[in-house]
Parts: sequence; structure tokens; C-alpha cells
Amino acid sequence: MGVRVSRGTMMSVLQIHRSEKDILQSRAAEIQREIQQGERKIFSEVLDLSSGDLHGGGIKPITFVRQVLAACSYPALLEDQSLPSDVRQRAEDLLRECAGGSVGSYSESSGMAKVRECVCEFISRRDGGVSSSPDNIFISTGSQTALMKLLTVLIRPEHSCRTGVLVPEPGYATFRLALQAQQAAVIPYQLCEDQGWTLQIQELRRALQSATHICTPAAIYICNPGNPTGHVQSRTSIEEVIRFAAEEKLFILADEVYQDCVFADEADFVSYKKVLSEMESPISSTVELASFHSASKGFMGECGLRGGYVELVNVDPAVQRYIRTLFSTRSCPPVPGQIAIQLMVDPPKPGDPSFPAFTEEVQSIRDVVCRNVRLIQEVCRELPGVRCQPLKAGFFVYPRLQIPPKAIKWAKEHQMKADMLYCMRLLEEEGLHVRPGCEYGQAEDTYHIRLFVGTRADTMEAALRRLKTFHTRFLEDFS
Amino acid sequence: MGVRVSRGTMMSVLQIHRSEKDILQSRAAEIQREIQQGERKIFSEVLDLSSGDLHGGGIKPITFVRQVLAACSYPALLEDQSLPSDVRQRAEDLLRECAGGSVGSYSESSGMAKVRECVCEFISRRDGGVSSSPDNIFISTGSQTALMKLLTVLIRPEHSCRTGVLVPEPGYATFRLALQAQQAAVIPYQLCEDQGWTLQIQELRRALQSATHICTPAAIYICNPGNPTGHVQSRTSIEEVIRFAAEEKLFILADEVYQDCVFADEADFVSYKKVLSEMESPISSTVELASFHSASKGFMGECGLRGGYVELVNVDPAVQRYIRTLFSTRSCPPVPGQIAIQLMVDPPKPGDPSFPAFTEEVQSIRDVVCRNVRLIQEVCRELPGVRCQPLKAGFFVYPRLQIPPKAIKWAKEHQMKADMLYCMRLLEEEGLHVRPGCEYGQAEDTYHIRLFVGTRADTMEAALRRLKTFHTRFLEDFS
Repeated sequence: MGVRVSRGTMMSVLQIHRSEKDILQSRAAEIQREIQQGERKIFSEVLDLSSGDLHGGGIKPITFVRQVLAACSYPALLEDQSLPSDVRQRAEDLLRECAGGSVGSYSESSGMAKVRECVCEFISRRDGGVSSSPDNIFISTGSQTALMKLLTVLIRPEHSCRTGVLVPEPGYATFRLALQAQQAAVIPYQLCEDQGWTLQIQELRRALQSATHICTPAAIYICNPGNPTGHVQSRTSIEEVIRFAAEEKLFILADEVYQDCVFADEADFVSYKKVLSEMESPISSTVELASFHSASKGFMGECGLRGGYVELVNVDPAVQRYIRTLFSTRSCPPVPGQIAIQLMVDPPKPGDPSFPAFTEEVQSIRDVVCRNVRLIQEVCRELPGVRCQPLKAGFFVYPRLQIPPKAIKWAKEHQMKADMLYCMRLLEEEGLHVRPGCEYGQAEDTYHIRLFVGTRADTMEAALRRLKTFHTRFLEDFS
Repeated sequence: MGVRVSRGTMMSVLQIHRSEKDILQSRAAEIQREIQQGERKIFSEVLDLSSGDLHGGGIKPITFVRQVLAACSYPALLEDQSLPSDVRQRAEDLLRECAGGSVGSYSESSGMAKVRECVCEFISRRDGGVSSSPDNIFISTGSQTALMKLLTVLIRPEHSCRTGVLVPEPGYATFRLALQAQQAAVIPYQLCEDQGWTLQIQELRRALQSATHICTPAAIYICNPGNPTGHVQSRTSIEEVIRFAAEEKLFILADEVYQDCVFADEADFVSYKKVLSEMESPISSTVELASFHSASKGFMGECGLRGGYVELVNVDPAVQRYIRTLFSTRSCPPVPGQIAIQLMVDPPKPGDPSFPAFTEEVQSIRDVVCRNVRLIQEVCRELPGVRCQPLKAGFFVYPRLQIPPKAIKWAKEHQMKADMLYCMRLLEEEGLHVRPGCEYGQAEDTYHIRLFVGTRADTMEAALRRLKTFHTRFLEDFS
């Protein structure tokens, strides 16, 4: 009939990625089904360290969050004296902001005013008093949706010269894909693995230089703390990036969704907004910045509710009106996700009935994650040919693998990246699902795997046992 | 700095709409604030009949839905014996489908397998046994999101000749806007007001003819039951449209979100899929169809949870793979919205503990809406210069206004549509917020207003009193 897929490039880009992703993902699902159907394997279930999903990893949701959500969903619970009084109070306060007192009503398209105000207070608190206005906050169906909307504004597909965006390697695969799908040019800059995945300003200059005559650079995308690298940018590094953006007239897209997940003692998260606000004029008042955050990626881990936000700083008023319009054409973000954001930015305070349990739960999730990270790093040190940079933050580790030449050759002959081969066999032989570095971008002839760190302790221990057994055998097989 | 808004047309289109919408919406909010700050008006609050939001209109959410949502959010409630056993059972069944047993986990990007299976069973039941496959179902963040994704596939912006989409007038404004934003050509077809807003096949032919040499028509968008018109298409009319689509090689986008809101005795909803499946070959196996449904628009009215789905029928496998990829690049739809969809398609059955209360609640919402519709139609008959087609379904009435020439002249002098003038003054003088026909498209020199019918009975009575008072005065003022 009438429809033919139009965007050739887009389709092939998406399908290549999809098919690679599919091999692992669908095979993992298949193996799990085989086990359920009684097929005997040396493992009793597939362990999944492939995606950044705390609850999927067996970490329990935070009670306060879920109690408030339950009371908002079913307000009869406001009378339930077994729920802490601050839970009931919070739910009442939130419902007062919903039309008809129901989470089933539409909210403003940029999110409930009250939630945006609380986000601003959180940002000001976080940044030592830097002011923030609810008019600059847009709540979204997860931070990625907000990022995609911003891209729509930044990318000019009708120009003869394509819009370019500086993107870290390694970096979040879906973002590169989205850029390509929107006909933008990806300008990759390499994070420096040997120096703990730091961002080097001379590398940004090299990358930009390489794009001359190929595209019109319009923005730089930063992920700090980093996925999949787990690095945290220093204040000096952030200042350098901002200065670079000012010189080159680039819009800064700062993906800061892992800001609450810093676990190295010597690392501190400093926001781009804070650093920008403390720089000299005119930089502080002209460099355009969008900072993203999410209820999915903190220790709350509420991915399924889909709540994120973006704060715009120094954005041209006409452009900001346009962004508002973009948000307004598609109904509102999910109200449960908005509630998750509100609870994330305004958690129980000392003295509140829920404070002790809340604090304890968050701390115990932190403890589990920190222990997992320690265990993974120990295993990486133990295993021959595996090297892992010190991990400071985020949800992932990204160790480098020295893959035997015979394995590289075998993979090449089978039109496969060598780290994909590693991941496929790890899944097949040990039932452990991790992601290959080829999905995130890596320096030529280097290989990595990405492992999620946010699982229950016993899951992680079992996963690492499988990894060790497999790795040793893999090296032997290809020696 | 670096960003300039690029898409001239897009921006102006969106801004024109936005500014019109803003005038009413922001003025409504302003008036409400003025009242709260103690300003004296002849009304004590703004009554809002502007958007299709049941809970916002004071209709209570359905208890079964909210109990299941609460138990899914806070599984400790599974032990709460005060919740009906089928509520607890349902929540348990749903949580079993969530990774880690949490609604906070990511689901498959096209939605939870179990939810898609239940959607299929619902469709088969609705359509008298026609088969439906979970692989053809995509759950989305509201039906509009799914519709927008489909547009991305249908519209070929890089072609020299723009893609055209047939769109009803009057029709849902955001959809026309989205088409224009994506550089597609809107091919308007007029619904026949004098015959109860029916869709006339000769009008489709005229519209398509008018598009020759202007664009390449690729799809026809249908809203059945209609927004804002409240009409329901007959089986014969649907057959005609399908035959037309087959001849002209058009993809059918069937927006069927009001399928559960038919309240006229003589009208029945028949789905495009059912009619298509019962037509002769090769039509039945080749005409491409996407049918949309939503948890927002039935009597459940859960807009804020953002749950919708699309079913694809006869879509080319390569195109469908591409659509799957499009859905897979953006995480998953919100899990609470997915739960709402599951509860919508699989409500309590006779014998279930929640069945009596559920049935009673749904019936009482139906009763209120039917009474509201009757009241509105009575008032329309009473008021001079107002004429309303018999209303059969949906959430809105769309009466036609004969606006006095003096008012039309005054509006023209103030660069305003006459029905916008009417709505502005109605809001200003009586605190009643309704939408002007100019937002939905209307035949030249005709004027309409759109009123939401899903409010509490007392709200509707008050609203209609205000409308009567105002209308009489408006006619006098401009006589």
C-alpha cells in the first residue's frame, strides 16, 4: 500500500543498532524461556546487568515514595492512620495541586506549578543559593524526552550544512542515535580513559576542528557524572568546557541525571549551572545551558514512572517561548512521574516521621551499590587482561578488556565486534547479560564491557562468580 | 548565543495557535488568581468546560482502578484485607509482570507483554472474534504520542512534493498543528454539519482532488466518535472510507479514543478494524490501518496517568519493524499508564467482588454525562441563534452560533475571530471558559463553541446558567 519507509539513513542507523541490541536482548529472553520450559543449563536464571534499573536489579523501592504515591492514587488512604502523618500530609498537599484533586487530571504541559517550584528550591539549595525560576523548568516524561525536545530546537534539518553536536565517546548510545535520526552530525570527542575518563579540553578543540566544513557545530552534550564511565568532572574541567562553549558559541546540554550517585569520597558533584553562575560576565549571563535530571537515576530508581526535568539557563526568550510551545503541543507529563520528581527534590527532613526510615533505606541502597562497586573492582584487578578506571559515580562500570588476537580474528570473520562476541558467549555459557563497549563508542582496537552496579548484593556476587569463570575460560579458548 | 529558532513555518504556526490558546487560558488563570486575592466578581470561581478532563470536571475516579494502582505502588497493601480480594489479586498479577516486582522498573519499550495480550483479548471481544496479535500493539504515553510516532513514519520531509494527510474540519487542533510542524500538507475535508456532522465520501473525493499537484496524499485521519462534533460513523460510512483508502492507497489513522463514550441509543460504535476484516479480499488484507485508544477518554478518565495504545493492521512488515524501532529508542511508556490500560481493557467481571461497585460507578458517570448532554441541548434549543446537532458520543458538544453582524464587525476590527470574541467575553463577564470554533476549523462564516460535557451535575447547571445570561446580553449588546 501507500507507505514506504522514507528516511533511508535513519532507518539503517536505527536498525543496525537495534539488531545488535536485539541479538543480546532477545537471546537473553529466549534463554530465560528455555529454562522455564525445563531445559537444563548450568545456571538457573539469566542475571541481568544490562540496563540501569535499580528495582529490576532487586533493590526495593523507597517506602516513603511509594506510600505517598499510593495515597495520591487512592485518597481513601489519607484516613489510614497506619501511614505516617507526613506521608498523608504530603499526599494531601500534592492532591491540592491537581485539578479536581486527582492524579488523573491533566496538569500544565510544563508540569505542575508546585512541582516546578520545589525543583527550583532544590536547585538553589544544591547550588548554594543560585536563584532558579519555575518558568525555566520543564517537567517531562523522563529526562530523555526533554533532551529530544531540545534537539528539535537546536537541529536545523533544512540548512544546507548539517547541525553538529559534540558527543562524548564512550557515551549513551541512544543519544547518538537520536542525533543521527534527526539528520544531525555527531562530532565525537574521546574521554581520556588512562586519566580516569576525564574530559580534556584540547580533545574538544581537536574534535571541533575536525568538523570544519562538515557541519555547523551548535551544541556540546556532556554526561556528568558519566554513563558508562562513572567519572565526575572537576570544577576546573567544567569551567574549561563553559569557556570553550562561550568561545565557540555552543549550547551546553548537561545530562546530570547521576548527580545523586557519587560514591567516591574524593569526588563531588558540582552542577554546570553553579559553575556558570560563578564565572565572570558576560559568560555567566550568556552561555546557554540546559541541565537534565531524572527520578529514574538517583537512589530512588523510579524509572517506570517516567519523571524528569530540564532547567534552561540564559536561553534566548524567543527560543524559550518556542520550547514552551513544543512542550505544550503534547499534553502533560505523567502525574505519577511528576510526584516522583517532587519527592526526589523535597525528601523527608529531620524531625519528619518518615525521616529515619527514609534515611536508612537510602543509606542501605548506597551501601549495597558501594559494596558492589568494590567487589567489581576487586574482580577486575584479579582477572588477567581486565583494567578498570577508579569508579566515582553513576550506575555503571566500564572495564577495558584485552581480548586475545584469536578471538578478535574469530569475531572479525563472523562480522562481529570482539566485545560483542565476549558478551554473547558470556550470556550463552554463563547466563550473564552485560553490554559490549561497541555500543557506546570506544577508541579503535580497545574493547570494553558495561556492567550495572545497582543490584542486590547476592545477585552481584553470583554475577561476578560467573564473570570470573567465563573470563578465564574465554582466554584459554582463544589462547 | 548560538541558537536561533530554525523552522520558520513551524514556529509561526505553533505560536499563532499558542497565542490564541494563551489568551483564554492565561486569562482564565489570571481571573481565578484575582478572585483568590479578594477581587470581587459576580462569580465566585471560573468554571472550566475547556478541556476533556473528567476528574478536572469533578467526576470521581473509579475506585477499582485506584485501589489496584495504590496496591501496585505500595505492595504492603496486598496484605490489607480492607481492599477487595480481586483488587489484591489483580495488583499481584500485574506486579508479577514487572521486573523486580516493581512499577518503578522499565518495561519493554512497546509495553508490558501481559498488557498487550489483554489489549488483544479486548479487541477480539469488541470486534466479535476478529484476531489480534500482541506484536501489533504498541502501548504509548497517551494515544497522541503513538499518533505522532506514526506521523514520523508516514511523512517524508525530504521529498520534493510534501506528504499530504486528509484531516477533518472541525477536528482536533493539535493534530493539524503537528502535521504542519512536520512539514506535511493538511488536506481538510469538511464534516457535514447539517447532517449531524457525518462524513460524506464525495467530500473526501473533492478534498483529495483539490490536493492534486500540491502534495502527495499518504494518509487519512479519522476521529470516530468525533471530537469536537460528537458524531458516530455508521458501518456503511466506514466501509466507504476504507474503499476510498484502498483506491487512493491511503493509510488510515483511526482515532477511536471515544469508543466507550457512545450515549445515544440509536448509535453504535463499530471499529475500523472490524469493518475492514469483514470486507472482501484484497481490501481486507491490504488496507493499512492504525487504530488508537486511550485510558484518558473513556469513563475512566485517567488523563494524568498517560496511557494509550495503537494497533497496527496490515502494515508492511519492514515498516512495522521500523515503528518498533522508533518506540524502542525512547525508554518505555509510564507503567501506571500501562496499568490503567490493562484495567480499562479487562475490567471486573460479574462475580468479582469489585464488580457491583465498579458497574455502579461507571453507570453513574454515564448518567451524569447523559444528563449534562440533555441539559446542554435544551439550552441550545432555547437560546436564539444557537443550533446544536444531535449529540451521539464523545466528550464535547459543538453548537453553532449565529453571531450578530455588529459583533462580527467589531471582532474583525480587533483582528479577532467572532467566536473568540464570544469566548473572551463569556470568560470575562461570567467566568465560564469554553473554546472557540476557530481552533477546530469550521466552514467560512460559521461560528461555534466547544463545551466539555463531563463535569459534575452542579457544575454543568451553573455553567449553563452563566451561558444563558451571557448569550442574551451578548445579542443585546450587538443588536
